[in-house]
Amino acid sequence: MNDFQFQNTTKVYFGKDQLGHLHTEVLKFGDKVLVAHGGSFIRESLLYKRVINELQTNAVTVYELGEVEPNPRHTTVNKGVAMCKEHGIQTVLAIGGGSTIDCCKAIAAAALSETDNIWDLVEEKIAWKDALAVIAIPTIASTGSEMDKSCVISNVELGVKSGINGEAIRPKAAFLDPTNTFTVPPMQTACGGFDIMAHFLDMNYFVNADKYPLQFNVVETILKTVRNQLPVAIKEPENYEARATLLWAASWALNSFCTSGFKTQPQLHALEQFSSTMDLTHGLGLAIITPKWMTYLLERDETVADDFARFGVNVMGIPDSEDKKALAFQAVEALQQFIKDELGLPVYLSELGLDGSKFDEMTKKACYGRKMLPLAYRPLTQEDCLNIYKMCL
Amino acid sequence: MNDFQFQNTTKVYFGKDQLGHLHTEVLKFGDKVLVAHGGSFIRESLLYKRVINELQTNAVTVYELGEVEPNPRHTTVNKGVAMCKEHGIQTVLAIGGGSTIDCCKAIAAAALSETDNIWDLVEEKIAWKDALAVIAIPTIASTGSEMDKSCVISNVELGVKSGINGEAIRPKAAFLDPTNTFTVPPMQTACGGFDIMAHFLDMNYFVNADKYPLQFNVVETILKTVRNQLPVAIKEPENYEARATLLWAASWALNSFCTSGFKTQPQLHALEQFSSTMDLTHGLGLAIITPKWMTYLLERDETVADDFARFGVNVMGIPDSEDKKALAFQAVEALQQFIKDELGLPVYLSELGLDGSKFDEMTKKACYGRKMLPLAYRPLTQEDCLNIYKMCL
Repeated sequence: MNDFQFQNTTKVYFGKDQLGHLHTEVLKFGDKVLVAHGGSFIRESLLYKRVINELQTNAVTVYELGEVEPNPRHTTVNKGVAMCKEHGIQTVLAIGGGSTIDCCKAIAAAALSETDNIWDLVEEKIAWKDALAVIAIPTIASTGSEMDKSCVISNVELGVKSGINGEAIRPKAAFLDPTNTFTVPPMQTACGGFDIMAHFLDMNYFVNADKYPLQFNVVETILKTVRNQLPVAIKEPENYEARATLLWAASWALNSFCTSGFKTQPQLHALEQFSSTMDLTHGLGLAIITPKWMTYLLERDETVADDFARFGVNVMGIPDSEDKKALAFQAVEALQQFIKDELGLPVYLSELGLDGSKFDEMTKKACYGRKMLPLAYRPLTQEDCLNIYKMCL
Repeated sequence: MNDFQFQNTTKVYFGKDQLGHLHTEVLKFGDKVLVAHGGSFIRESLLYKRVINELQTNAVTVYELGEVEPNPRHTTVNKGVAMCKEHGIQTVLAIGGGSTIDCCKAIAAAALSETDNIWDLVEEKIAWKDALAVIAIPTIASTGSEMDKSCVISNVELGVKSGINGEAIRPKAAFLDPTNTFTVPPMQTACGGFDIMAHFLDMNYFVNADKYPLQFNVVETILKTVRNQLPVAIKEPENYEARATLLWAASWALNSFCTSGFKTQPQLHALEQFSSTMDLTHGLGLAIITPKWMTYLLERDETVADDFARFGVNVMGIPDSEDKKALAFQAVEALQQFIKDELGLPVYLSELGLDGSKFDEMTKKACYGRKMLPLAYRPLTQEDCLNIYKMCL
């Protein structure tokens, strides 16, 4: 097992009746809070009213940054930074998905830095260490940003998605209430759920590294659990247990517990350039690419068969058998069917009316401008990436 | 799923080459440290020399409390408290097992309180909130005390084991080096490993509560992993992977991650009064009592059969079948055989030359002086407890 360091200080309030603790967490840092969210959908929600009421009845002054985009722009971050500096705000509170939480983390760091422009931090022109307090109220089970210490921001002018990473921006508290995810529509539930699965697959399961018994078995179990509970949440949006399982699993995927000791280069996340070039939802991009990537590897490299076969049996629930290669192909097929039938997601770009005109751009991005992904599960050349993209048409 | 709050702030340094970070952690709190351990076995170890060297070369003044007992006495704690107060020590560093770590937690709390006697805190005569910093270097995979916030202390004069509990005594840092457990003899390895299993069985697996898919499946997986890796560590004491798995699993058992949302009353730990009355190792007491407790329940209460059968198949690895009751009995038999053959532990008191003369005392303690354990997996009367003890003869 590789040496590793683990610490995760986020205080999690999980469940239906925890919002009464919000003002206590906020007032640890000061009485001015910036509430950031994605716009009218949140502003009209009961959750939003409860949050504002909870803060205002406890003498907290609320500033508001609405309209945080799905891939949050650095200009929106900068707007929040200016508000924090102008009003002397101490806490940035996110209500929303990973994008809103990421936006708040970026605001928190830049607000205590010398610059008004988050991109100076992203490009490491300005050093930073401290940050305002971040508190997260996720409204979808997906990225797990509420317990991790990084964020991704889009610079539309440069056509670049990048981010910052540091202990100071890890949320001080996170309020995980499964009922806040009851209204997430089936399509977004499916995409968020597949994002959770992809985090595990990419960073802990299909890895070019030793499989440590504890972490690897735990990851496999969580994958299977998400695989089983996700269709329940899609069919029964108010099934508390299914929603709770997904919400907590999303945090586990990125809170460093399951990744402890693993060192790898996430390949599916590198390949998933559909969101950055075609504006597809990230989780949908992952759902489209994953089975094609598996098929491509399997047709060229027998050494993946055992891993894929194990995935088929232990995660997808197909019966075990002797012929590992056949089993591996069945596993990929089972995954594709799961995405199509149980998650109700498209599995080809053509179903979305999209073509391959962005593939060259995607390929370059996927390989980070270099020749291949050297530490990934199986290194891929730019040609490999392009071939995999073509399988998605 | 029950609402819950989760936070675990301990910084874990896991692996072979982490001790170089020790002085950084110590110097966060001050330059005077009390190093506590169990005596000559530790003092003559390479680990001890490395720790002292690491501290002294970084200008840390070291005070020493040796001879911490296996069930640490409140008088030993008080000795440490006096040293901390006299010398203005800021950090208490444990090198050893759960007893040493627990002793350090108790010292840390009392040293900042108004009293010189830890028992005033245990009996809640004196309120306490803050504590000196605690740092833990476990030398056996067992209690998981290095990431939790409670401790158990023995008052021999009163014949009582009790403790304190609070966020301030959770270790600030823990150095988990599997090679530090290479010298743990087979018997202690087995007892420590069974202690880990019992934590999961008692608090997350055989519980009178809903089984949440995520946490329950993870717990079952860790149980199976420990069941498989423990015999490896016994046979191959320097098997790094097996030792690492046990050491990290011990922390997972008590770091609140796996218990999140569960509410139960630990029954096996209540029944395990062999250590408090006959001076048996706690893990051995648990290993003796667990299969008898299962048999006793199974013979009287058909409703446990499904749970025990699942344990048999998913943890003990016996083949699944239709007849759940038969399967449940097989599961208990498999567990007893595992303890005897693979762990090499005695399964009856008579093998240790012990009799039932303490059973009345044990029974009273097990039920905490009350009639039964109302929230436990299956409530037991004092008569039930006594009957189970008799099965251990």
